[in-house]
Amino acid sequence: MSAMTAGDDAALVERLVATILDHVVDPPSGDDPVVRFAAPGDLVTAFDASVGLALGDDAPAHGADRVEAAVAAVLHHSVQTTHPRFMNQNYAGADPVAVVGDWLGAALNTASSTYEIAPVFHLVESAVLAKLAHLAGFGGPGADAPPSPFPPGLFCPGGSIALLYALQLARHRRQPDLVRSGATAEPVAVFVSASGHYGAGKAAALLGLGTDAVVEVATDADGAMRPDALREAIAASAAEGRTPLAVIATSGTTVTCAFDPLDAVADACAEHGAWMHVDGCYGASALFSPDHRQRLAGVERADSMVWNLHKMMGATQQCTALLLREPERLVACFSSGADYLFQPDKQFGEWDSGDRTYQCGRRVDALKFWLAWKVRGDAGLAARIDHAVAMADFARMVVGASDGAFVPLVDTGFTNLVFLWVPEALRPLDPAWLATPEGAATRDRLHRLAPRIKARMQREGTAMLGYQPVHGVNCFRLLVMNPAVSPDDVEAILGLIDRYGTEEWADLD
Amino acid sequence: MSAMTAGDDAALVERLVATILDHVVDPPSGDDPVVRFAAPGDLVTAFDASVGLALGDDAPAHGADRVEAAVAAVLHHSVQTTHPRFMNQNYAGADPVAVVGDWLGAALNTASSTYEIAPVFHLVESAVLAKLAHLAGFGGPGADAPPSPFPPGLFCPGGSIALLYALQLARHRRQPDLVRSGATAEPVAVFVSASGHYGAGKAAALLGLGTDAVVEVATDADGAMRPDALREAIAASAAEGRTPLAVIATSGTTVTCAFDPLDAVADACAEHGAWMHVDGCYGASALFSPDHRQRLAGVERADSMVWNLHKMMGATQQCTALLLREPERLVACFSSGADYLFQPDKQFGEWDSGDRTYQCGRRVDALKFWLAWKVRGDAGLAARIDHAVAMADFARMVVGASDGAFVPLVDTGFTNLVFLWVPEALRPLDPAWLATPEGAATRDRLHRLAPRIKARMQREGTAMLGYQPVHGVNCFRLLVMNPAVSPDDVEAILGLIDRYGTEEWADLD
Repeated sequence: MSAMTAGDDAALVERLVATILDHVVDPPSGDDPVVRFAAPGDLVTAFDASVGLALGDDAPAHGADRVEAAVAAVLHHSVQTTHPRFMNQNYAGADPVAVVGDWLGAALNTASSTYEIAPVFHLVESAVLAKLAHLAGFGGPGADAPPSPFPPGLFCPGGSIALLYALQLARHRRQPDLVRSGATAEPVAVFVSASGHYGAGKAAALLGLGTDAVVEVATDADGAMRPDALREAIAASAAEGRTPLAVIATSGTTVTCAFDPLDAVADACAEHGAWMHVDGCYGASALFSPDHRQRLAGVERADSMVWNLHKMMGATQQCTALLLREPERLVACFSSGADYLFQPDKQFGEWDSGDRTYQCGRRVDALKFWLAWKVRGDAGLAARIDHAVAMADFARMVVGASDGAFVPLVDTGFTNLVFLWVPEALRPLDPAWLATPEGAATRDRLHRLAPRIKARMQREGTAMLGYQPVHGVNCFRLLVMNPAVSPDDVEAILGLIDRYGTEEWADLD
Repeated sequence: MSAMTAGDDAALVERLVATILDHVVDPPSGDDPVVRFAAPGDLVTAFDASVGLALGDDAPAHGADRVEAAVAAVLHHSVQTTHPRFMNQNYAGADPVAVVGDWLGAALNTASSTYEIAPVFHLVESAVLAKLAHLAGFGGPGADAPPSPFPPGLFCPGGSIALLYALQLARHRRQPDLVRSGATAEPVAVFVSASGHYGAGKAAALLGLGTDAVVEVATDADGAMRPDALREAIAASAAEGRTPLAVIATSGTTVTCAFDPLDAVADACAEHGAWMHVDGCYGASALFSPDHRQRLAGVERADSMVWNLHKMMGATQQCTALLLREPERLVACFSSGADYLFQPDKQFGEWDSGDRTYQCGRRVDALKFWLAWKVRGDAGLAARIDHAVAMADFARMVVGASDGAFVPLVDTGFTNLVFLWVPEALRPLDPAWLATPEGAATRDRLHRLAPRIKARMQREGTAMLGYQPVHGVNCFRLLVMNPAVSPDDVEAILGLIDRYGTEEWADLD
């Protein structure tokens, strides 16, 4: 297909893989840079020496040396998400075994749609879903049973797509002619806590319900949905003529990692005939740990749950399981029976997953997690959660002993901690004072401080940590996701905040 | 995180990668098996010797030897989609450079959502989209310009998801308060040819429009939309009170690879204010070849186009570009402005793509194709298309010289061919006779023959080729996607059909 021969291709591929593999088996740590931050223009320049970033007119074919330099530049200038001091997102620290599982899937390049083109992957997906459903108490034949052609859910690319499935299934249960006739004009409401993911509004908009159909339910101080507020919200919405379509309970909110009370939500759903969906994108992984699984007590009563194994569990992007208590609903809601693909006269067609999904073809996302699970075992997955909580507990201890340098704002006791750094002259600081008229000017300065601290981390490449406004002031969110995080890393990050904070506070106008 | 140390992990990873890499650099060909077909129960047994397929209660951690055996079993029992005799799907023959690009993205495990966690990947995605838009004539600053923070589209996981975006943008253009208020009760219609992808109905159902809103437009004998039929369909639908929301023109239908007349579709869309979406999942790649790009004449007038680079171009699953003529519509239609992620006070936030998408986080799908493009150049990508057409032309020649053994049913002259195999006693066969009462019994036998031929291929592992009913009889679809396909492969596959057909016909009751 080009001037290169197959032999040239093989030699190039082997060179590139050697470089990439080094990165996987020996990831950066300690004082290695987390990021070599560069402006977009600088990145363009960085590639000028090899292949160039743009694909201009008459884009040429580049030789092996230039391509190898380009791959090195990609590695060099990308954010090192496996570095233990990358605590910026709800994912980090890819499991190297999952990386290899991902590579295996790419090498075999097929689509999860029919058994005939993806036999092993259909069995693997079924096995993983059965075990996840078992952990969630969704019933079924049990994780020890042979893989079934009708697994309790499906894998799909990300939590937002999974939510679309769940809400469409909810509509379909209320309105069996939905697929053919379209949604009726009946006004409906979808309930989610004020701390829930913004994806609820996006899904409502895409389904044609509109964000007005999403009702935010008040939370307690930690960010968990208040059951009394849910009942009031359902009643108020019903008074406006809106039918309660679904309640989205969150197991692990994005910022504070709060867990909604699932049993109470299930009671309300049962009473009103609403679909119960659990957004466990972040927190469902607590189910892997016997010590922490009680945070999801009641999840077995949900109609659906989404679980991102690419967040806490180190599966690479993306690895999202949608679990369903009544998976047979997928067929009625999504089947089209295309005869060039789902031929009724072929072998083992009952396994074909493509006709039960919206997407038809899917990347084989279950494979990588299956492989990692086989290497780690149940105990290894539990240890990943327990380690994260232990490191967050260590951070709590350091914060508690900081003499007011760090003030926790919200702490749900799991794997993250939301806190404010306080300049020495302001200690001890009562965060409530910041909300008073006297505290407003200080609040404004503190609000502007966090982005400057973050920018220093990025420029110096020492760490990455997220910030967001809580009660009107930007504060940091320390997230432990990576099993490589050590107490040294926690102390180092807090120390950096203290140092940068002191220097930037002095410079702040 | 388990009993294994980091050193154990590294050694295991290196062993596994060596096995997988062998598969990539030395893919199966010729008489190597395309598939080692096995029933689900046999696959379960195949893994019993290593790690087992299921994840039972107290799933153990397995050691390196067993894990290596499990990976070998995955490779052994999976369908070899890079084998030139795998002609079963609208994808085949992954480019090994794209495989490595996919591996690079997995190794760096990040999400395309914000510049701060994916700086290089935002630039790469922008560069690829700019060049694709340039090839489609969508305008913009040109492929030679530095990558822009506002690229002409986005990458998303598969054509069905891309279609959701397109139709939601179409609704949003008609109804600016769509996101907040939800879809109005105004009945709308979406037009797609009778040969178009079944995804149109699925998207209409998910958006709440219902499959009744999808109007099938009649096609010519090759499967291309008839412009007169489109105008009639729009008029008939308007007479029923349905507003024409969108027309989906197909560039490369699934079975016959027909190309709808885009200029005529654009005229009709302009006249009626309908959104013009081009489903170029399969056929848009003709734009890479100066010899074949005229099949998409008029595409530059579309509002949106979806283009699956994982089909003809050898990018691994999935690599889907959605191109938009007015990409700024994405912000109004999909932005939520979550403040913990899209902080207004951070550096280079204008690049953050996550707030312009439905999904927020996306796998870095553009990277692998960018890398392959840099290695192949424009000429290499054109050669991939030209080679596929040349091999299909070779197949046409063999079929034409077969003395009636192979009868083409539909041939649009591009990279696939839909044909019937005819038993010797029935030659010469006029396919029209099969539709007569006298031909019904023969048609029924021929219909049952194709699945038996396919099953023989699978059992013997010699090839894989799709079949589907056309005019009521199962016929084969020969698809050329893989640059490794040679005239020998084409002759071998046709020879297998002839041999299996003769044997199975004799056995057929």
